[in-house]
Amino acid sequence: MKKEQFIQFMEEGNLSVPKYLLNNYVNLGLNEKEFILLLHVHSFVESGIIFPTPMEIADKMTIDPSECMEILRHLLQKGYVSISDEMDEYSIKYERYSLQPLWEKMITYMMDQNKQTTQSMNQQQEM
Amino acid sequence: MKKEQFIQFMEEGNLSVPKYLLNNYVNLGLNEKEFILLLHVHSFVESGIIFPTPMEIADKMTIDPSECMEILRHLLQKGYVSISDEMDEYSIKYERYSLQPLWEKMITYMMDQNKQTTQSMNQQQEM
Amino acid sequence: MKKEQFIQFMEEGNLSVPKYLLNNYVNLGLNEKEFILLLHVHSFVESGIIFPTPMEIADKMTIDPSECMEILRHLLQKGYVSISDEMDEYSIKYERYSLQPLWEKMITYMMDQNKQTTQSMNQQQEM
Amino acid sequence: MKKEQFIQFMEEGNLSVPKYLLNNYVNLGLNEKEFILLLHVHSFVESGIIFPTPMEIADKMTIDPSECMEILRHLLQKGYVSISDEMDEYSIKYERYSLQPLWEKMITYMMDQNKQTTQSMNQQQEM
Repeated sequence: MKKEQFIQFMEEGNLSVPKYLLNNYVNLGLNEKEFILLLHVHSFVESGIIFPTPMEIADKMTIDPSECMEILRHLLQKGYVSISDEMDEYSIKYERYSLQPLWEKMITYMMDQNKQTTQSMNQQQEM
Repeated sequence: MKKEQFIQFMEEGNLSVPKYLLNNYVNLGLNEKEFILLLHVHSFVESGIIFPTPMEIADKMTIDPSECMEILRHLLQKGYVSISDEMDEYSIKYERYSLQPLWEKMITYMMDQNKQTTQSMNQQQEM
Repeated sequence: MKKEQFIQFMEEGNLSVPKYLLNNYVNLGLNEKEFILLLHVHSFVESGIIFPTPMEIADKMTIDPSECMEILRHLLQKGYVSISDEMDEYSIKYERYSLQPLWEKMITYMMDQNKQTTQSMNQQQEM
Repeated sequence: MKKEQFIQFMEEGNLSVPKYLLNNYVNLGLNEKEFILLLHVHSFVESGIIFPTPMEIADKMTIDPSECMEILRHLLQKGYVSISDEMDEYSIKYERYSLQPLWEKMITYMMDQNKQTTQSMNQQQEM
Protein backbone atom coordinates (compact mmCIF):
# COMPACT_ATOMS: atom_id res chain seq x y z
CA MET A 1 0.00 0.00 0.00
CA LYS A 2 1.38 3.37 -0.98
CA LYS A 3 1.64 6.28 1.43
CA GLU A 4 -0.56 8.42 -0.80
CA GLN A 5 -3.37 5.86 -0.57
CA PHE A 6 -3.19 5.78 3.20
CA ILE A 7 -3.22 9.58 3.38
CA GLN A 8 -6.26 9.67 1.08
CA PHE A 9 -7.94 7.08 3.30
CA MET A 10 -7.25 9.26 6.35
CA GLU A 11 -8.55 12.36 4.57
CA GLU A 12 -11.89 10.64 3.83
CA GLY A 13 -12.29 10.18 7.56
CA ASN A 14 -14.93 8.37 9.58
CA LEU A 15 -18.64 8.58 10.16
CA SER A 16 -19.57 8.45 13.84
CA VAL A 17 -22.77 6.45 14.30
CA PRO A 18 -24.34 6.62 17.78
CA LYS A 19 -24.57 3.04 19.06
CA TYR A 20 -28.00 3.86 20.45
CA LEU A 21 -29.16 4.59 16.89
CA LEU A 22 -27.51 1.43 15.53
CA ASN A 23 -29.22 -0.59 18.26
CA ASN A 24 -32.66 0.98 17.76
CA TYR A 25 -33.22 1.92 14.12
CA VAL A 26 -35.70 -0.96 13.85
CA ASN A 27 -37.61 0.36 16.86
CA LEU A 28 -37.69 3.76 15.15
CA GLY A 29 -39.43 2.12 12.18
CA LEU A 30 -36.50 1.81 9.76
CA ASN A 31 -35.26 -1.19 7.83
CA GLU A 32 -31.63 -1.76 6.79
CA LYS A 33 -31.86 -0.06 3.39
CA GLU A 34 -33.55 3.01 4.83
CA PHE A 35 -31.07 3.22 7.69
CA ILE A 36 -28.04 2.94 5.41
CA LEU A 37 -29.54 5.50 3.02
CA LEU A 38 -29.77 7.95 5.92
CA LEU A 39 -26.13 7.21 6.83
CA HIS A 40 -25.15 7.98 3.22
CA VAL A 41 -27.06 11.29 3.33
CA HIS A 42 -25.32 12.07 6.65
CA SER A 43 -21.93 11.23 5.16
CA PHE A 44 -22.53 13.30 2.00
CA VAL A 45 -23.64 16.33 4.01
CA GLU A 46 -20.59 16.06 6.30
CA SER A 47 -18.34 15.90 3.25
CA GLY A 48 -19.82 19.14 1.92
CA ILE A 49 -22.24 17.61 -0.62
CA ILE A 50 -25.32 18.93 1.14
CA PHE A 51 -27.96 17.92 -1.39
CA PRO A 52 -26.86 14.68 -3.10
CA THR A 53 -28.99 13.40 -5.99
CA PRO A 54 -30.76 10.01 -5.81
CA MET A 55 -28.24 8.92 -8.45
CA GLU A 56 -25.24 9.83 -6.29
CA ILE A 57 -26.73 8.00 -3.31
CA ALA A 58 -27.87 4.94 -5.29
CA ASP A 59 -24.36 4.71 -6.75
CA LYS A 60 -23.07 3.66 -3.32
CA MET A 61 -25.89 1.18 -2.66
CA THR A 62 -27.37 -1.99 -4.18
CA ILE A 63 -30.43 -0.03 -5.38
CA ASP A 64 -31.08 1.93 -8.58
CA PRO A 65 -31.85 5.69 -8.68
CA SER A 66 -35.62 5.21 -8.99
CA GLU A 67 -35.80 2.94 -5.93
CA CYS A 68 -33.56 5.43 -4.12
CA MET A 69 -35.92 8.29 -5.01
CA GLU A 70 -38.85 6.26 -3.69
CA ILE A 71 -37.12 5.51 -0.38
CA LEU A 72 -36.09 9.16 -0.03
CA ARG A 73 -39.69 10.29 -0.64
CA HIS A 74 -40.90 7.81 1.98
CA LEU A 75 -38.29 9.03 4.54
CA LEU A 76 -39.19 12.68 3.87
CA GLN A 77 -42.91 11.94 4.25
CA LYS A 78 -42.50 9.93 7.44
CA GLY A 79 -40.25 12.60 8.93
CA TYR A 80 -36.83 10.93 9.18
CA VAL A 81 -35.06 13.57 7.10
CA SER A 82 -35.98 17.03 5.86
CA ILE A 83 -34.95 19.48 3.15
CA SER A 84 -34.22 23.00 4.32
CA ASP A 85 -33.91 26.09 2.13
CA GLU A 86 -30.82 28.18 2.78
CA MET A 87 -29.08 31.16 1.22
CA ASP A 88 -25.35 31.58 0.64
CA GLU A 89 -23.21 34.72 1.01
CA TYR A 90 -24.00 35.73 -2.58
CA SER A 91 -27.77 35.50 -1.82
CA ILE A 92 -28.08 32.39 -3.96
CA LYS A 93 -30.69 29.99 -2.60
CA TYR A 94 -29.84 26.33 -2.15
CA GLU A 95 -31.31 23.22 -0.55
CA ARG A 96 -29.75 20.88 1.95
CA TYR A 97 -30.74 17.67 3.67
CA SER A 98 -31.03 17.76 7.44
CA LEU A 99 -31.10 14.82 9.84
CA GLN A 100 -32.65 16.87 12.64
CA PRO A 101 -35.96 14.94 12.30
CA LEU A 102 -34.07 11.66 12.86
CA TRP A 103 -32.45 12.93 16.06
CA GLU A 104 -35.85 14.16 17.21
CA LYS A 105 -37.45 10.75 16.59
CA MET A 106 -34.56 9.13 18.45
CA ILE A 107 -34.82 11.32 21.53
CA THR A 108 -38.61 10.96 21.62
CA TYR A 109 -38.19 7.18 21.54
CA MET A 110 -35.56 7.33 24.32
CA MET A 111 -37.87 9.36 26.53
CA ASP A 112 -40.84 7.05 25.88
CA GLN A 113 -38.73 4.00 26.73
CA ASN A 114 -37.67 5.60 29.98
CA LYS A 115 -41.26 6.39 30.93
CA GLN A 116 -42.35 2.80 30.25
CA THR A 117 -39.48 1.41 32.33
CA THR A 118 -40.37 3.73 35.21
CA GLN A 119 -44.06 2.81 34.96
CA SER A 120 -43.41 -0.94 34.93
CA MET A 121 -41.07 -0.53 37.91
CA ASN A 122 -43.78 1.38 39.77
CA GLN A 123 -46.35 -1.31 38.93
CA GLN A 124 -44.01 -4.04 40.18
CA GLN A 125 -43.49 -2.18 43.43
CA GLU A 126 -47.24 -1.79 43.90
CA MET A 127 -47.86 -5.51 43.46
CA MET B 1 -34.99 14.36 28.72
CA LYS B 2 -33.47 13.42 32.03
CA LYS B 3 -29.78 13.80 32.80
CA GLU B 4 -29.49 10.07 33.50
CA GLN B 5 -30.74 9.25 30.00
CA PHE B 6 -28.23 11.57 28.38
CA ILE B 7 -25.38 10.11 30.44
CA GLN B 8 -26.46 6.60 29.44
CA PHE B 9 -26.54 7.72 25.80
CA MET B 10 -22.97 9.07 26.16
CA GLU B 11 -21.83 5.85 27.83
CA GLU B 12 -23.08 3.75 24.90
CA GLY B 13 -20.79 5.78 22.69
CA ASN B 14 -20.30 5.81 18.94
CA LEU B 15 -19.22 3.40 16.25
CA SER B 16 -16.65 4.91 13.88
CA VAL B 17 -17.29 3.70 10.33
CA PRO B 18 -14.55 4.52 7.80
CA LYS B 19 -16.21 6.55 5.02
CA TYR B 20 -14.16 4.56 2.51
CA LEU B 21 -15.93 1.40 3.71
CA LEU B 22 -19.35 3.08 3.66
CA ASN B 23 -18.66 4.26 0.10
CA ASN B 24 -17.39 0.90 -1.13
CA TYR B 25 -19.15 -1.99 0.64
CA VAL B 26 -21.04 -2.72 -2.60
CA ASN B 27 -17.73 -2.89 -4.50
CA LEU B 28 -16.49 -5.33 -1.86
CA GLY B 29 -19.45 -7.60 -2.66
CA LEU B 30 -21.75 -6.76 0.25
CA ASN B 31 -25.41 -5.75 0.26
CA GLU B 32 -27.03 -3.51 2.90
CA LYS B 33 -28.14 -6.33 5.22
CA GLU B 34 -24.73 -7.97 5.17
CA PHE B 35 -22.95 -4.65 5.74
CA ILE B 36 -25.17 -3.69 8.67
CA LEU B 37 -24.79 -7.16 10.17
CA LEU B 38 -21.00 -6.66 10.12
CA LEU B 39 -21.43 -3.26 11.80
CA HIS B 40 -23.50 -4.94 14.51
CA VAL B 41 -20.80 -7.59 15.05
CA HIS B 42 -18.20 -4.78 15.21
CA SER B 43 -20.31 -2.87 17.73
CA PHE B 44 -20.93 -5.95 19.90
CA VAL B 45 -17.23 -6.82 19.98
CA GLU B 46 -16.28 -3.23 20.89
CA SER B 47 -18.82 -3.31 23.72
CA GLY B 48 -17.23 -6.45 25.13
CA ILE B 49 -19.72 -9.01 23.76
CA ILE B 50 -17.13 -10.72 21.60
CA PHE B 51 -19.21 -13.65 20.33
CA PRO B 52 -22.85 -12.50 20.00
CA THR B 53 -25.42 -15.15 19.10
CA PRO B 54 -27.46 -14.94 15.87
CA MET B 55 -30.42 -14.21 18.14
CA GLU B 56 -28.72 -11.23 19.77
CA ILE B 57 -27.74 -9.82 16.37
CA ALA B 58 -31.13 -10.50 14.72
CA ASP B 59 -32.79 -8.76 17.64
CA LYS B 60 -31.37 -5.45 16.40
CA MET B 61 -32.27 -6.06 12.74
CA THR B 62 -35.36 -6.67 10.60
CA ILE B 63 -34.35 -10.33 10.15
CA ASP B 64 -35.07 -13.42 12.23
CA PRO B 65 -32.36 -15.56 13.89
CA SER B 66 -32.37 -18.22 11.16
CA GLU B 67 -31.84 -15.66 8.38
CA CYS B 68 -29.15 -14.07 10.54
CA MET B 69 -27.38 -17.42 10.95
CA GLU B 70 -27.50 -17.93 7.18
CA ILE B 71 -26.01 -14.49 6.46
CA LEU B 72 -23.31 -15.06 9.11
CA ARG B 73 -22.41 -18.42 7.54
CA HIS B 74 -22.18 -16.76 4.13
CA LEU B 75 -19.96 -13.96 5.48
CA LEU B 76 -17.68 -16.47 7.24
CA GLN B 77 -17.41 -18.60 4.08
CA LYS B 78 -16.71 -15.65 1.79
CA GLY B 79 -14.11 -14.29 4.21
CA TYR B 80 -15.61 -11.04 5.50
CA VAL B 81 -15.43 -12.06 9.15
CA SER B 82 -13.68 -14.85 11.05
CA ILE B 83 -13.96 -16.66 14.37
CA SER B 84 -10.75 -16.90 16.38
CA ASP B 85 -10.09 -19.19 19.34
CA GLU B 86 -8.60 -17.46 22.35
CA MET B 87 -7.81 -18.33 25.95
CA ASP B 88 -8.45 -16.18 29.05
CA GLU B 89 -6.28 -15.72 32.15
CA TYR B 90 -7.91 -18.76 33.77
CA SER B 91 -6.99 -20.93 30.71
CA ILE B 92 -10.62 -21.10 29.67
CA LYS B 93 -11.03 -21.19 25.89
CA TYR B 94 -13.45 -18.84 24.18
CA GLU B 95 -14.34 -17.72 20.68
CA ARG B 96 -14.53 -14.22 19.29
CA TYR B 97 -15.49 -12.62 16.01
CA SER B 98 -12.78 -10.72 14.18
CA LEU B 99 -13.24 -8.19 11.38
CA GLN B 100 -9.62 -8.52 10.23
CA PRO B 101 -10.75 -10.27 7.01
CA LEU B 102 -12.97 -7.28 6.17
CA TRP B 103 -10.09 -4.82 6.59
CA GLU B 104 -7.94 -7.08 4.42
CA LYS B 105 -10.57 -7.17 1.66
CA MET B 106 -10.86 -3.39 1.88
CA ILE B 107 -7.14 -2.72 1.59
CA THR B 108 -6.79 -5.21 -1.27
CA TYR B 109 -9.58 -3.41 -3.11
CA MET B 110 -7.95 -0.02 -2.46
CA MET B 111 -4.66 -1.23 -3.88
CA ASP B 112 -6.33 -2.77 -6.95
CA GLN B 113 -8.21 0.46 -7.62
CA ASN B 114 -4.99 2.43 -7.43
CA LYS B 115 -3.26 0.09 -9.89
CA GLN B 116 -6.13 0.38 -12.38
CA THR B 117 -6.11 4.18 -12.13
CA THR B 118 -2.35 4.24 -12.72
CA GLN B 119 -2.67 1.85 -15.68
CA SER B 120 -5.47 3.82 -17.36
CA MET B 121 -3.47 7.02 -16.85
CA ASN B 122 -0.45 5.38 -18.47
CA GLN B 123 -2.59 4.16 -21.39
CA GLN B 124 -4.00 7.65 -21.89
CA GLN B 125 -0.50 9.09 -21.95
CA GLU B 126 0.61 6.53 -24.53
CA MET B 127 -2.26 7.37 -26.87
CA MET C 1 3.23 0.13 4.17
CA LYS C 2 2.44 -3.50 4.67
CA LYS C 3 -1.09 -4.87 4.73
CA GLU C 4 -0.55 -6.22 8.23
CA GLN C 5 0.27 -2.74 9.52
CA PHE C 6 -2.85 -1.26 7.99
CA ILE C 7 -5.01 -4.04 9.45
CA GLN C 8 -3.45 -3.44 12.87
CA PHE C 9 -4.17 0.29 12.49
CA MET C 10 -7.81 -0.52 11.68
CA GLU C 11 -8.07 -2.89 14.64
CA GLU C 12 -6.90 -0.14 17.04
CA GLY C 13 -9.86 1.90 15.89
CA ASN C 14 -10.92 5.44 16.67
CA LEU C 15 -11.93 7.44 19.68
CA SER C 16 -15.08 9.49 19.10
CA VAL C 17 -14.80 12.86 20.84
CA PRO C 18 -18.00 14.93 20.98
CA LYS C 19 -17.23 18.27 19.29
CA TYR C 20 -19.23 19.98 22.03
CA LEU C 21 -16.73 18.63 24.58
CA LEU C 22 -13.74 19.62 22.42
CA ASN C 23 -15.19 23.13 22.07
CA ASN C 24 -15.98 23.52 25.77
CA TYR C 25 -13.46 21.66 27.93
CA VAL C 26 -11.99 25.05 28.98
CA ASN C 27 -15.45 26.22 30.03
CA LEU C 28 -15.79 23.03 32.07
CA GLY C 29 -12.62 24.01 33.95
CA LEU C 30 -10.09 21.74 32.23
CA ASN C 31 -6.74 22.59 30.68
CA GLU C 32 -5.16 20.71 27.76
CA LYS C 33 -3.18 18.20 29.85
CA GLU C 34 -6.21 17.34 31.98
CA PHE C 35 -8.47 17.01 28.94
CA ILE C 36 -6.03 14.75 27.08
CA LEU C 37 -5.52 12.65 30.21
CA LEU C 38 -9.29 12.07 30.35
CA LEU C 39 -9.26 11.08 26.66
CA HIS C 40 -6.50 8.56 27.43
CA VAL C 41 -8.53 7.10 30.31
CA HIS C 42 -11.55 6.92 27.97
CA SER C 43 -9.47 5.18 25.30
CA PHE C 44 -7.95 2.69 27.76
CA VAL C 45 -11.36 1.77 29.17
CA GLU C 46 -12.81 1.30 25.67
CA SER C 47 -9.89 -0.97 24.80
CA GLY C 48 -10.63 -3.16 27.82
CA ILE C 49 -7.95 -1.75 30.16
CA ILE C 50 -10.48 -0.44 32.65
CA PHE C 51 -8.08 0.69 35.39
CA PRO C 52 -4.84 1.89 33.79
CA THR C 53 -1.97 2.82 36.10
CA PRO C 54 -0.56 6.37 36.21
CA MET C 55 2.55 4.85 34.58
CA GLU C 56 0.57 3.44 31.65
CA ILE C 57 -1.17 6.78 31.11
CA ALA C 58 1.98 8.90 31.56
CA ASP C 59 3.74 6.67 29.04
CA LYS C 60 1.53 8.15 26.30
CA MET C 61 1.93 11.75 27.45
CA THR C 62 4.72 14.31 28.00
CA ILE C 63 4.37 13.96 31.79
CA ASP C 64 5.99 11.55 34.26
CA PRO C 65 4.00 9.07 36.43
CA SER C 66 4.10 11.28 39.54
CA GLU C 67 2.67 14.31 37.69
CA CYS C 68 0.09 11.96 36.15
CA MET C 69 -0.92 10.69 39.58
CA GLU C 70 -1.31 14.27 40.80
CA ILE C 71 -3.51 15.27 37.85
CA LEU C 72 -5.60 12.10 38.31
CA ARG C 73 -6.08 12.88 42.00
CA HIS C 74 -7.15 16.42 41.11
CA LEU C 75 -9.63 15.15 38.48
CA LEU C 76 -11.09 12.62 40.93
CA GLN C 77 -11.45 15.29 43.64
CA LYS C 78 -13.04 17.84 41.34
CA GLY C 79 -15.44 15.23 39.96
CA TYR C 80 -14.39 14.80 36.33
CA VAL C 81 -13.81 11.06 36.62
CA SER C 82 -14.68 8.44 39.23
CA ILE C 83 -13.56 4.99 40.30
CA SER C 84 -16.29 2.40 40.64
CA ASP C 85 -16.04 -0.97 42.38
CA GLU C 86 -17.33 -3.91 40.38
CA MET C 87 -17.36 -7.69 40.63
CA ASP C 88 -16.66 -10.20 37.86
CA GLU C 89 -18.38 -13.53 37.15
CA TYR C 90 -15.96 -15.30 39.52
CA SER C 91 -16.91 -12.85 42.33
CA ILE C 92 -13.51 -11.18 42.13
CA LYS C 93 -13.70 -7.48 42.90
CA TYR C 94 -12.08 -4.98 40.58
CA GLU C 95 -11.97 -1.23 40.04
CA ARG C 96 -12.68 0.72 36.89
CA TYR C 97 -12.57 4.34 35.84
CA SER C 98 -15.84 5.91 34.77
CA LEU C 99 -16.32 9.14 32.80
CA GLN C 100 -19.95 9.50 33.91
CA PRO C 101 -19.04 12.56 36.07
CA LEU C 102 -17.58 14.28 32.98
CA TRP C 103 -20.76 13.72 30.96
CA GLU C 104 -22.76 15.04 33.90
CA LYS C 105 -20.64 18.20 34.12
CA MET C 106 -21.03 18.66 30.36
CA ILE C 107 -24.82 18.34 30.36
CA THR C 108 -25.14 20.64 33.39
CA TYR C 109 -23.05 23.25 31.55
CA MET C 110 -25.18 22.86 28.39
CA MET C 111 -28.35 23.42 30.36
CA ASP C 112 -26.95 26.44 32.18
CA GLN C 113 -25.83 27.99 28.90
CA ASN C 114 -29.29 27.51 27.47
CA LYS C 115 -30.92 29.18 30.47
CA GLN C 116 -28.60 32.18 30.20
CA THR C 117 -29.31 32.55 26.48
CA THR C 118 -33.04 32.40 27.12
CA GLN C 119 -32.79 34.94 29.97
CA SER C 120 -30.74 37.42 27.95
CA MET C 121 -33.20 37.06 25.07
CA ASN C 122 -36.09 37.77 27.43
CA GLN C 123 -34.28 40.81 28.83
CA GLN C 124 -33.66 42.14 25.34
CA GLN C 125 -37.33 41.72 24.50
CA GLU C 126 -38.35 43.57 27.67
CA MET C 127 -36.14 46.53 26.83
CA MET D 1 -32.48 18.97 29.14
CA LYS D 2 -34.61 20.21 26.30
CA LYS D 3 -35.05 18.31 23.06
CA GLU D 4 -33.67 21.24 21.07
CA GLN D 5 -30.43 21.13 23.05
CA PHE D 6 -29.99 17.43 22.44
CA ILE D 7 -30.65 17.88 18.71
CA GLN D 8 -28.08 20.69 18.59
CA PHE D 9 -25.60 18.44 20.40
CA MET D 10 -26.21 15.71 17.80
CA GLU D 11 -25.82 18.20 14.95
CA GLU D 12 -22.38 19.27 16.23
CA GLY D 13 -21.29 15.67 15.88
CA ASN D 14 -18.09 13.90 16.85
CA LEU D 15 -14.45 14.08 15.94
CA SER D 16 -12.93 10.66 15.21
CA VAL D 17 -9.39 10.50 16.55
CA PRO D 18 -7.35 7.45 15.46
CA LYS D 19 -6.25 5.68 18.65
CA TYR D 20 -2.86 5.13 17.03
CA LEU D 21 -2.41 8.90 16.85
CA LEU D 22 -3.64 9.39 20.42
CA ASN D 23 -1.17 6.73 21.58
CA ASN D 24 1.77 8.13 19.62
CA TYR D 25 1.57 11.92 19.33
CA VAL D 26 4.48 12.18 21.78
CA ASN D 27 6.55 9.83 19.61
CA LEU D 28 5.73 12.06 16.64
CA GLY D 29 7.26 15.00 18.54
CA LEU D 30 4.10 16.73 19.76
CA ASN D 31 3.15 17.89 23.24
CA GLU D 32 -0.42 18.09 24.57
CA LYS D 33 -1.06 21.72 23.55
CA GLU D 34 0.23 21.14 20.03
CA PHE D 35 -1.77 17.93 19.66
CA ILE D 36 -5.01 19.54 20.86
CA LEU D 37 -4.41 22.55 18.62
CA LEU D 38 -4.21 20.17 15.64
CA LEU D 39 -7.45 18.49 16.75
CA HIS D 40 -9.11 21.93 16.86
CA VAL D 41 -7.86 22.73 13.33
CA HIS D 42 -9.17 19.31 12.21
CA SER D 43 -12.55 19.97 13.84
CA PHE D 44 -12.84 23.49 12.35
CA VAL D 45 -12.03 22.23 8.83
CA GLU D 46 -14.56 19.38 9.16
CA SER D 47 -17.20 21.91 10.24
CA GLY D 48 -16.58 24.00 7.13
CA ILE D 49 -14.35 26.68 8.72
CA ILE D 50 -11.35 25.76 6.62
CA PHE D 51 -9.00 28.56 7.69
CA PRO D 52 -9.72 29.46 11.32
CA THR D 53 -7.86 32.45 12.78
CA PRO D 54 -5.47 32.08 15.75
CA MET D 55 -8.11 33.98 17.72
CA GLU D 56 -10.86 31.47 16.87
CA ILE D 57 -8.61 28.55 17.84
CA ALA D 58 -7.24 30.19 21.02
CA ASP D 59 -10.81 30.91 22.07
CA LYS D 60 -11.33 27.17 22.62
CA MET D 61 -8.02 26.64 24.46
CA THR D 62 -6.24 27.90 27.57
CA ILE D 63 -3.83 29.96 25.45
CA ASP D 64 -4.07 33.50 24.08
CA PRO D 65 -4.05 34.35 20.33
CA SER D 66 -0.36 35.27 20.26
CA GLU D 67 0.74 31.96 21.84
CA CYS D 68 -1.62 30.21 19.42
CA MET D 69 -0.01 31.97 16.45
CA GLU D 70 3.41 30.93 17.71
CA ILE D 71 2.42 27.26 18.06
CA LEU D 72 0.77 27.34 14.62
CA ARG D 73 3.95 28.78 13.08
CA HIS D 74 6.00 26.05 14.77
CA LEU D 75 3.64 23.31 13.52
CA LEU D 76 3.72 24.71 9.97
CA GLN D 77 7.53 24.93 10.02
CA LYS D 78 8.00 21.43 11.41
CA GLY D 79 5.54 20.00 8.90
CA TYR D 80 2.59 18.84 11.01
CA VAL D 81 0.06 20.96 9.14
CA SER D 82 0.10 22.91 5.88
CA ILE D 83 -1.78 25.72 4.19
CA SER D 84 -2.98 25.03 0.67
CA ASP D 85 -4.22 27.57 -1.86
CA GLU D 86 -7.50 26.69 -3.52
CA MET D 87 -10.01 28.35 -5.84
CA ASP D 88 -13.80 28.30 -5.55
CA GLU D 89 -16.41 28.04 -8.31
CA TYR D 90 -16.40 31.84 -8.73
CA SER D 91 -12.59 31.76 -9.25
CA ILE D 92 -12.02 33.38 -5.88
CA LYS D 93 -8.82 32.16 -4.23
CA TYR D 94 -8.88 30.99 -0.65
CA GLU D 95 -6.61 29.23 1.83
CA ARG D 96 -7.28 26.14 3.87
CA TYR D 97 -5.45 24.13 6.49
CA SER D 98 -4.60 20.56 5.62
CA LEU D 99 -3.60 17.77 8.01
CA GLN D 100 -2.04 15.68 5.24
CA PRO D 101 1.47 16.32 6.67
CA LEU D 102 0.36 14.88 10.02
CA TRP D 103 -0.95 11.70 8.42
CA GLU D 104 2.30 11.42 6.47
CA LYS D 105 4.39 11.76 9.63
CA MET D 106 2.18 9.15 11.30
CA ILE D 107 2.51 6.59 8.53
CA THR D 108 6.27 7.15 8.27
CA TYR D 109 6.56 6.52 12.00
CA MET D 110 4.41 3.35 11.73
CA MET D 111 6.64 1.99 8.97
CA ASP D 112 9.84 2.79 10.86
CA GLN D 113 8.50 1.07 13.97
CA ASN D 114 7.69 -2.00 11.96
CA LYS D 115 11.18 -2.12 10.43
CA GLN D 116 12.80 -1.85 13.86
CA THR D 117 10.61 -4.63 15.25
CA THR D 118 11.50 -6.86 12.30
CA GLN D 119 15.20 -6.07 12.66
CA SER D 120 15.28 -6.78 16.39
CA MET D 121 13.41 -10.04 15.77
CA ASN D 122 15.95 -11.01 13.13
CA GLN D 123 18.82 -10.17 15.49
CA GLN D 124 17.27 -12.30 18.22
CA GLN D 125 16.91 -15.20 15.81
CA GLU D 126 20.57 -14.88 14.75
CA MET D 127 21.79 -15.03 18.34
